[in-house]
Amino acid sequence: MKYKAEVTIMPLKELLDPQGKAVLSGLKHLDMPQVKDVRVGKHIVLELEAANETSAQEAVDEACKKLLANPVMEQYEFVLHEAGKK
Amino acid sequence: MKYKAEVTIMPLKELLDPQGKAVLSGLKHLDMPQVKDVRVGKHIVLELEAANETSAQEAVDEACKKLLANPVMEQYEFVLHEAGKK
Repeated sequence: MKYKAEVTIMPLKELLDPQGKAVLSGLKHLDMPQVKDVRVGKHIVLELEAANETSAQEAVDEACKKLLANPVMEQYEFVLHEAGKK
Repeated sequence: MKYKAEVTIMPLKELLDPQGKAVLSGLKHLDMPQVKDVRVGKHIVLELEAANETSAQEAVDEACKKLLANPVMEQYEFVLHEAGKK
């Protein structure tokens, strides 16, 4: 079966997010002072084949731990659905 | 009122995504051939103040157009909710 995983990786809340601060400052210069805080992370879409949903979930989790997310600085979460469905 | 916007920015489907291809190749080397495709984008969380939901929506849209997304190469979508609620 084909699955699609939408992974969201964000810097941990406790940490300063320099990229977010840069964007925030950029928005202030663009005359948008109503924006109070910005955090920038990654959104990764994986398409994979797996026998069932459990093994797809394990594969995505493994990919996050091994390559996609840095657990010291980032947290990740993902939503899995069968490809073809939304 | 305070609002929180979750913005997802992805490379356009028609375009090659070099970062995604690099991740895909990395996963193959990590012995995960079940992953067939990867696309890498950005996830940006904005906290902002606005009089009402419509003006919050307009502000986020303006921020995306002016700074966050590059319309030539990327598409964006966002979900807005009142801060405090999830």
